[in-house]
Amino acid sequence: MAQTQQDSRSTSTADVSAGIIPDSINPDIQKERDNAMLNKELITQMTYIIDGGKEFTERRRHIESCLFQDPLFSERDRYLRTSAETFDLGVKRSLRMIDFKKTHSITFSEIWDIIYRALSNEQTFGIHDLMFVTFIENQGTEEQKARWLDEARNMRMLGTYAQTELGHGTYIPGLETTATYDPSSQEFIINTPTLTSMKWWPGALGKTSTHAVVLAQLIIGGKNYGPHAFMVQLRSLQDHCVLPGRSVGVIGDKWNYAGTDNGYLRLRNVRIPRADMFMKYFQVSSDGVYTKQGNPKVLYSTMMVVRLKIVQESWQSLARALVTGIRYSAIRKQGPMDRGGPEVSILDYQTQQEKLLPGLATAYAFNAVGKRLQQVFNKVQADISKEHFSSLPELHALCCGLKSFTTGTAVGFIESVRLACGGHGYLLSSGIPYTYSRTAGGCTYEGENTVMMLQVARYLLKSAYSAQNGIVLAESVAYLAVDTSGESWSACTESDVRDTSLLIKAFQHRAHRLVNHVGQRVARLMGEGHSQGTAWNNSTIDLVHAAKAHVEFYTVVTFCDVIKTLSADPTILKILQTLSCFYAVFLMDKNIGDFMQDGYVTSDQAEMVHSQYFALLAHLRPEAVPLVDAFDFTDLTIHSVLGCYDGNAYERLYEHALRDPKNKTEIHETYSKYLKPLLTGQKSKL
Amino acid sequence: MAQTQQDSRSTSTADVSAGIIPDSINPDIQKERDNAMLNKELITQMTYIIDGGKEFTERRRHIESCLFQDPLFSERDRYLRTSAETFDLGVKRSLRMIDFKKTHSITFSEIWDIIYRALSNEQTFGIHDLMFVTFIENQGTEEQKARWLDEARNMRMLGTYAQTELGHGTYIPGLETTATYDPSSQEFIINTPTLTSMKWWPGALGKTSTHAVVLAQLIIGGKNYGPHAFMVQLRSLQDHCVLPGRSVGVIGDKWNYAGTDNGYLRLRNVRIPRADMFMKYFQVSSDGVYTKQGNPKVLYSTMMVVRLKIVQESWQSLARALVTGIRYSAIRKQGPMDRGGPEVSILDYQTQQEKLLPGLATAYAFNAVGKRLQQVFNKVQADISKEHFSSLPELHALCCGLKSFTTGTAVGFIESVRLACGGHGYLLSSGIPYTYSRTAGGCTYEGENTVMMLQVARYLLKSAYSAQNGIVLAESVAYLAVDTSGESWSACTESDVRDTSLLIKAFQHRAHRLVNHVGQRVARLMGEGHSQGTAWNNSTIDLVHAAKAHVEFYTVVTFCDVIKTLSADPTILKILQTLSCFYAVFLMDKNIGDFMQDGYVTSDQAEMVHSQYFALLAHLRPEAVPLVDAFDFTDLTIHSVLGCYDGNAYERLYEHALRDPKNKTEIHETYSKYLKPLLTGQKSKL
Repeated sequence: MAQTQQDSRSTSTADVSAGIIPDSINPDIQKERDNAMLNKELITQMTYIIDGGKEFTERRRHIESCLFQDPLFSERDRYLRTSAETFDLGVKRSLRMIDFKKTHSITFSEIWDIIYRALSNEQTFGIHDLMFVTFIENQGTEEQKARWLDEARNMRMLGTYAQTELGHGTYIPGLETTATYDPSSQEFIINTPTLTSMKWWPGALGKTSTHAVVLAQLIIGGKNYGPHAFMVQLRSLQDHCVLPGRSVGVIGDKWNYAGTDNGYLRLRNVRIPRADMFMKYFQVSSDGVYTKQGNPKVLYSTMMVVRLKIVQESWQSLARALVTGIRYSAIRKQGPMDRGGPEVSILDYQTQQEKLLPGLATAYAFNAVGKRLQQVFNKVQADISKEHFSSLPELHALCCGLKSFTTGTAVGFIESVRLACGGHGYLLSSGIPYTYSRTAGGCTYEGENTVMMLQVARYLLKSAYSAQNGIVLAESVAYLAVDTSGESWSACTESDVRDTSLLIKAFQHRAHRLVNHVGQRVARLMGEGHSQGTAWNNSTIDLVHAAKAHVEFYTVVTFCDVIKTLSADPTILKILQTLSCFYAVFLMDKNIGDFMQDGYVTSDQAEMVHSQYFALLAHLRPEAVPLVDAFDFTDLTIHSVLGCYDGNAYERLYEHALRDPKNKTEIHETYSKYLKPLLTGQKSKL
Repeated sequence: MAQTQQDSRSTSTADVSAGIIPDSINPDIQKERDNAMLNKELITQMTYIIDGGKEFTERRRHIESCLFQDPLFSERDRYLRTSAETFDLGVKRSLRMIDFKKTHSITFSEIWDIIYRALSNEQTFGIHDLMFVTFIENQGTEEQKARWLDEARNMRMLGTYAQTELGHGTYIPGLETTATYDPSSQEFIINTPTLTSMKWWPGALGKTSTHAVVLAQLIIGGKNYGPHAFMVQLRSLQDHCVLPGRSVGVIGDKWNYAGTDNGYLRLRNVRIPRADMFMKYFQVSSDGVYTKQGNPKVLYSTMMVVRLKIVQESWQSLARALVTGIRYSAIRKQGPMDRGGPEVSILDYQTQQEKLLPGLATAYAFNAVGKRLQQVFNKVQADISKEHFSSLPELHALCCGLKSFTTGTAVGFIESVRLACGGHGYLLSSGIPYTYSRTAGGCTYEGENTVMMLQVARYLLKSAYSAQNGIVLAESVAYLAVDTSGESWSACTESDVRDTSLLIKAFQHRAHRLVNHVGQRVARLMGEGHSQGTAWNNSTIDLVHAAKAHVEFYTVVTFCDVIKTLSADPTILKILQTLSCFYAVFLMDKNIGDFMQDGYVTSDQAEMVHSQYFALLAHLRPEAVPLVDAFDFTDLTIHSVLGCYDGNAYERLYEHALRDPKNKTEIHETYSKYLKPLLTGQKSKL
């Protein structure tokens, strides 16, 4: 039955307004929690696993509760605000955050892992914290750090990272902005010589930033040394006026991120001192001699951090949507299973499970893979600090591949959650459109997803070639040295199909086959006389496909592997193992043609995979609600009328509707303006 | 080279502003048009084919040009408006449209086929025209039509169609609203007795409609006769006050459709005269005797019109997005194909073609299928008017299946177009987010897509069962009587793979197999002791899959068939044949596992299909720009800075950005409000 006490992590009392929203748990959702194996205590343990440890969970919860004590961070009116109001609030919040971060000693990674996770909302200066400051730290000389770091950290200069141009995105060599060295004055002269070369997109560039890290082609004595980074001041620190030679503004509203003033920047003969080129790894001497050290890829290591964090954000976005979809499906009814029977929760429908449970398994998989990627990243960072660059290419490929795979996949499943919520998922108050449009940005920013996958493909083909030449491969691609062609899948029984080691073998075989297959295709096309570029281009669909198969293999392996390393309650381990098995079976069923193409999997085996997909859906269904509870998002973070912990979705839908500005008066102003003359038979004046 | 004269169907002169947008065609897009087989004259012929005849094209162009002479219908500021401004404009436009329709004698179907096609925008009273008036026409008695039709057509009463409830969507028997007959007063007493029974979603219900067709359970003497329709007045015609017993308001902002006040309605003991029940097919006599005639499905024939029109809208939405994606891809460059070579249009990239050309073929296929569905609909309407109802079930299944398939598919391809536009596709000014969020609504309104597909599946299983019993099947399912199991695909060569008759055979075999396979599954589960409902539910994923295979087969056949009936220039016919072949090959390659599962298609044949997919992509690529030109959307309809006819996307991006309200001042108000104290080292006051 419905319980009256409220979970302390659920609803803010402010939300229980107008007497519409009951102070009790919806009995249908309570039943889900009562009947699941994952009870309250196990849910908490699962939360610790997802968070990477109890200590972090407690820290996170503490910070969240402090955050939400400040009404400035309330999202109660998120879906009622105009774009202009959201921007105003974004700036205000970003400033409030400065003190908040100091008070609570928030670290760099906690900005992502706690603050952004809790708010998932509009802050103007994200790019300042995450790219501008980081860039100075990573690419500045000691002298530059001494000059800029303290100012930047305390936001006495506000900065952005200006790489992308109106006509040039992921293809960095194509950037048109130039920085021409003038030895006579020891200055760089920076220009965006064409319309298409204007910087376009950087966050906070339009109306707020005072400085920008500008990527420009370095030109010395007529020779182009390729893109390098320069610190360019944009606005006066006294009065915020735009400095001479600069032209800045916003690029217009986006599908989301109304809190940030993404902008454009045109530069005409802007002179900056030689000392303002970022010179940690690349130097220009006073007389114009260029030197470099280390791996030029280091220039993009800031982008790698961001891609890593996008992977982690992807699972959070997906998880947030799933909380809504699954809780709502537990309380929504649409008739009986059999004529005359009782109405059932729509979560009992197989097609509804299909819309939600593969996404749920994926969210757990992405959480695991995000943690693993962080470990790899930390190791490589430590290597780089010792000037060892050999592990960079693998990390680069992992970041590209997982950024592309997790964002693209998350967006697809969020749309699936929207459909699972029926018409109500189309209301802004459901939160799904917001989550969708926000997550969708991740498919193109920080590296367009197809280009990212092609970089992975290039790494895979290189690795396969290295393997043929006996070179030892990096861990994530070591399997490319193991030829499995001619083998067939050994699964004979249903329990074989649920055996993750056999599933992993199938994914390994598929990735290996597809990488080799497309490698041969490229070679064949070149053999037929096509140029390397044409041969590559005429194979890119298969290259992307092979790269995706590789990333899926990596994700399946990593998910299983992370679970193996856990010591936890047997029920939790069992459920996680089921999730990982289901994840692999789902992916295999969906791409079954790939596995059958060379006869590795037979028709009968394919049929077994398909049956196990159904069986595992039904198996996981009773744990669906606790599995999203374990994500441990508060209602204030989910911000969906459909997704609250207490399951009172209908009451919240209605309560939110009542707060719509149009409902403030019984008769809307359009009546007297336009409708009255019409309805009373006069001519209306428009 | 660039041409200076402007195509009269492209840009409005108002758009060529501030000297930013050149009065010339971008040379890269001109090159596309110069080099294609489809020259200007053939494009016009293709437009006639798409439109269904020259006469309609000319009529449509004339109406469009009249429409756009009225500045009220300009969409120049679409992406700069707030939700409130859009609503105000929506009402204003709807009223202006009354006179416009009279002046130009716009017919019912022209509202959809010309007005909505041209504007694709915000009008408040769409539901009045399309459902309220239609419902009176179809379901009203002669007496009711005499009372209401003239008032409704002249908008002296504004109406909506109130079926969906807060807690009840596509499952109509679950509706909770009641209409209880009181013989003593000869009135119906209408109630929404619970929170979940309130009407929720109807367009124009919240703030504008004076009347609603309310669906309610008809109760006479304690017996429930199921859902019936009643005319309920909501607001006073004198002063627009809400009448006693009614409570109405808006349900809050949606992902799109800001021009319509979708609303909620609660009714408490609202009495209406007996004569206000819609009684054409169902009657309640003064003493409470219930009678009916004809097929009860007729009640939902209004929904069938809407589903038909949604199918036609789906291709238009997809086509609009493709115009943007393909034109932009023609002028966008991202580096050379080979190092040192010239930069190429990104449309030359195979992965870019994959994002756009399958969608293009699909748009042409959906255009054909939409026209065919209209023919079927017209025929069935004629039957119904003669009280023949036997063809209703097939039409119902076609409308459900195609509505679900075309909306879901269109949404997926629109997202693909967004990705094809890179980061710029995320700007509102690109028009893609608007098209996406608008089209996405079609997946859940007027019948949730999964439920729609399950209704198709039910029809298919019934038909297969009838065939076993020797009953002659309707045309679209006649193939279910032809057993092809055990057969294998006869395609041996590349040209066989491009043979549409062989492709059709493959789709027929697949649909037949999947329908039978899932039929057997349902029977087996029931044989194992499951109830019918459980057996059905545990097969719904496969049922949806089979239904989709059927609809894809129908679409492939219809597309090929429609082309066969055309008499046109050989070049046009050749291109259309290539499109239909490509469409089938694309779908087959994507779902190859389905075709291989029972050995119908071998690995080698699958490989050939895959190769032909690549070959046809390359084959169609040169015609891509003229093929979207042939849709004949004006720039004013596309309303995308990336998709204009002249290809000057960068200039328009910049011009649109400059018009953003934030760019009106050099220093934004947030500076003095919040940033100044921070940047000048003081404490900011928040």
